[in-house]
Amino acid sequence: MSDSPWPDGYRSAACFTFDLDADEIWNLRIESDEAWDKPPIRTRGEFGPNVAVPRILELFDRYDLRCTFFIPGRVAEDWPETVRAIHEAGHEIGHHGYRHVNPSNFDSRAEEEADVKEALDVFDDLLGETPVGYRSPASDLSDHTLELLAEHGIRWESTFMDDDRPYVHDEGIVEIPFDWSLDDWPYFGYQMYPQLPYQSGITPTGPVFDSWRREFDGLHKRGRAFTLTMHPQIIGRAGRIDALEELIQHVLATGDAWITTGEEIAERWETGKN
Amino acid sequence: MSDSPWPDGYRSAACFTFDLDADEIWNLRIESDEAWDKPPIRTRGEFGPNVAVPRILELFDRYDLRCTFFIPGRVAEDWPETVRAIHEAGHEIGHHGYRHVNPSNFDSRAEEEADVKEALDVFDDLLGETPVGYRSPASDLSDHTLELLAEHGIRWESTFMDDDRPYVHDEGIVEIPFDWSLDDWPYFGYQMYPQLPYQSGITPTGPVFDSWRREFDGLHKRGRAFTLTMHPQIIGRAGRIDALEELIQHVLATGDAWITTGEEIAERWETGKN
Amino acid sequence: MSDSPWPDGYRSAACFTFDLDADEIWNLRIESDEAWDKPPIRTRGEFGPNVAVPRILELFDRYDLRCTFFIPGRVAEDWPETVRAIHEAGHEIGHHGYRHVNPSNFDSRAEEEADVKEALDVFDDLLGETPVGYRSPASDLSDHTLELLAEHGIRWESTFMDDDRPYVHDEGIVEIPFDWSLDDWPYFGYQMYPQLPYQSGITPTGPVFDSWRREFDGLHKRGRAFTLTMHPQIIGRAGRIDALEELIQHVLATGDAWITTGEEIAERWETGKN
Amino acid sequence: MSDSPWPDGYRSAACFTFDLDADEIWNLRIESDEAWDKPPIRTRGEFGPNVAVPRILELFDRYDLRCTFFIPGRVAEDWPETVRAIHEAGHEIGHHGYRHVNPSNFDSRAEEEADVKEALDVFDDLLGETPVGYRSPASDLSDHTLELLAEHGIRWESTFMDDDRPYVHDEGIVEIPFDWSLDDWPYFGYQMYPQLPYQSGITPTGPVFDSWRREFDGLHKRGRAFTLTMHPQIIGRAGRIDALEELIQHVLATGDAWITTGEEIAERWETGKN
Repeated sequence: MSDSPWPDGYRSAACFTFDLDADEIWNLRIESDEAWDKPPIRTRGEFGPNVAVPRILELFDRYDLRCTFFIPGRVAEDWPETVRAIHEAGHEIGHHGYRHVNPSNFDSRAEEEADVKEALDVFDDLLGETPVGYRSPASDLSDHTLELLAEHGIRWESTFMDDDRPYVHDEGIVEIPFDWSLDDWPYFGYQMYPQLPYQSGITPTGPVFDSWRREFDGLHKRGRAFTLTMHPQIIGRAGRIDALEELIQHVLATGDAWITTGEEIAERWETGKN
Repeated sequence: MSDSPWPDGYRSAACFTFDLDADEIWNLRIESDEAWDKPPIRTRGEFGPNVAVPRILELFDRYDLRCTFFIPGRVAEDWPETVRAIHEAGHEIGHHGYRHVNPSNFDSRAEEEADVKEALDVFDDLLGETPVGYRSPASDLSDHTLELLAEHGIRWESTFMDDDRPYVHDEGIVEIPFDWSLDDWPYFGYQMYPQLPYQSGITPTGPVFDSWRREFDGLHKRGRAFTLTMHPQIIGRAGRIDALEELIQHVLATGDAWITTGEEIAERWETGKN
Repeated sequence: MSDSPWPDGYRSAACFTFDLDADEIWNLRIESDEAWDKPPIRTRGEFGPNVAVPRILELFDRYDLRCTFFIPGRVAEDWPETVRAIHEAGHEIGHHGYRHVNPSNFDSRAEEEADVKEALDVFDDLLGETPVGYRSPASDLSDHTLELLAEHGIRWESTFMDDDRPYVHDEGIVEIPFDWSLDDWPYFGYQMYPQLPYQSGITPTGPVFDSWRREFDGLHKRGRAFTLTMHPQIIGRAGRIDALEELIQHVLATGDAWITTGEEIAERWETGKN
Repeated sequence: MSDSPWPDGYRSAACFTFDLDADEIWNLRIESDEAWDKPPIRTRGEFGPNVAVPRILELFDRYDLRCTFFIPGRVAEDWPETVRAIHEAGHEIGHHGYRHVNPSNFDSRAEEEADVKEALDVFDDLLGETPVGYRSPASDLSDHTLELLAEHGIRWESTFMDDDRPYVHDEGIVEIPFDWSLDDWPYFGYQMYPQLPYQSGITPTGPVFDSWRREFDGLHKRGRAFTLTMHPQIIGRAGRIDALEELIQHVLATGDAWITTGEEIAERWETGKN
């Protein structure tokens, strides 16, 4: 496979990503609707930083692997120790907006830019460095987003769905594509409240991980990037995190899949070797 | 595992809980909407006390195990013999509101307190004692609920979703956390009527119990509490109750999972040993 | 099992029922909404009498078994040969309304009675006899339905969900209970048009039949009645009808499950032996 | 099987079809709603021509098989090279409207005819020939559609759901029937945006392909046509395309299933031999 785009004899890449939204989705709802104040469902989000993140860190540490967390700025402000623990464990921290809002919903480019910058400031204050990766909180971007991200030091992002190998946007940002079939929310994200999006049942654990394993196998064979999008509050449940461990073992068993962060994949793509 | 929070060498706890809502959900709908009077769907609720509860009692008796039933006060008034049979079999009976309404929907703290007290009075009259456990009928609480519950003798509750091991609220109430992935309704609760919540298809039985087994395995390994929320009218169908028996056999086969009531778990937590 | 309610040493009963709605659901929609005229989806209903019913007749003939078809009067008018073929094959034909409407939606008792009678007249004209069994077309009844049915010769019906063994209503009508988990529509009934009810995805075939097999096993063990509700247009697809055959083989393999019509079950219950 | 309707000793037919809608569904939405401009979701459609079609062509080439692509005229204008590659590989290209709109939504017969002709012109310009097959983009037709299609050279179509073997419409057009249970969208078509149709979860890959295999087996046994409707953007994901390959291997393993285009099936039916 001398023409593989991946380094060091790797045949494919596997990028495990976690959108640490915590209680931000519900906070937004509560702020926008006087009649909506639901403390228990907000705690569902808190499961993410409080219980799931330590479990995820332990799992990746056990296999000496690195992954990527996308964290809204406001979540980072509320859980600074969680953010520091993720950072100190060597994982990448990506930009996920300051608030968890659809970038196309901002009233102006200036307002969107303010949100982009506010999130960068939070991480600069907390960690002394700013993210170089980004994922939209809403599978959507405005006409300005890529340009704004490029201007503020973002080098890669993961929102588009038109490929399963990375490519470079006109703005110079590397895209590591996303797809809902590799996102835990459509399967497990059940919410009882019809005011919230993505409502449907809960898919049993085994068949979902079997689908993800099939998708990894197909992408590995083709030398593509397997980019799994998870939410700690969803995937951090004990039975699912153990299924995730089995999936990681399966990926490792190939011997030539490059499990790494988005940043490392982007760097490889930026060098122009691909 | 000398640092286990569980007594007697147990590694984890498993708490099987049943929300015996009977026909109360539909009664509420019928009372609030002149145009809505559907006798057959109301009988779906009656399947709970009439058919499912005897099946559940027989199952837990066969294995000499205890579980917890949350029962709305009004349901207890309509099925007093069912409530007494549950009580006499040694199971715990928990508070589930007098009416099956969202605590945050009451117009005032006083109105909410009246509902809390009315339910306690029902059980006092029926059994000569009042519940010490509580679960919200709507996965939601008002700002007053925990305070009210504490004032009226409730010692533990199961509505929050931020952990999978118990903890103590500021009000002194032990939380035994809940999660929708361990609730039978999102999988099996299908309703044809769009006026009713939680609408989606019906998930096949086997994969759901496989998911629950995976979650138990993961929680057991970590020394957590496996808290399964079921509704007799849903889980009491013959094929599901037999699948529940297989799950119980699986839990028992570990040899060191503590299958018990919420009350016993709460007591252990209250002693300050954890 | 000398106390079995079933005759001839049978341990349980299995009643396979088919609601032959054909295109009636869509006809109703088209008549009530000027803007709604969708010929292809109407043909989905026609798959029932045209393709599925011959397949079902052939299947039950091969095993020398009898089943029950509920047919709206208007569907019988449009497919008289299909109705005669079902009848001549020895299967029971049940009342399913003249139009496929919710009995509680009629404006008056008189209007509801007219619908009940109109359906009876259709079958009297076609077959020289009238149905003795009934199922609501909408999982719902009015306050008058049972009384009206009893007055017009109906001896059993299958709409209530409060048990899994038959019982007798105050009106003298035997109930052979129904449940959505044993109905093919919640799993397979997908419709692209949001104006129509029951919208969700399509559940894969194998797991649904596995659930039905589990439910039969549980009911058989307990000596209950397994009542499966199917729609020819849904279940008559080739892969599903073959899965149904496997289920029938499984039921037959017990050696002591009574596969029969609702009428025969009702007769047994009416004799007062149960 | 001397009375088989299929040629050359074949027992059944299997017609693999792909609706190459690309980004047309989202373009329509964007044009009709000023507030709706979502670039990333549009790229989900682009996955079809850019990534999935080459994968599908490679797969069918490897087994020396032919299939049918339905392509909206406007999509063909945007991806002419893709259309030419499909054509040069020997696959059939069918009519799928010029725009991807419901034929019954046109204001007049003239407007509908203009759309029919516009699509034909696109393919005539691109390939020097026009489609003879058609599938509605919306599982729906107007009262004029079949007549219009016949007048403009369409010889077969695939929208009706009333059979699983071909038949001939009064207009002389051969129908190769369609069914949602053999369409990838109800299982995999998840969309986060409630403004778009067909919203539900994502079904795991393995069980869906198992259902399709069961349906093929049942249809093959009965000498019918297995007509699978796929969307490149959905089925072209690596794990699913590999599952499709396994399904094709299963069909080939029968030794007597005729894998071919709709056009060849229609030709056989037109000869009057069936």
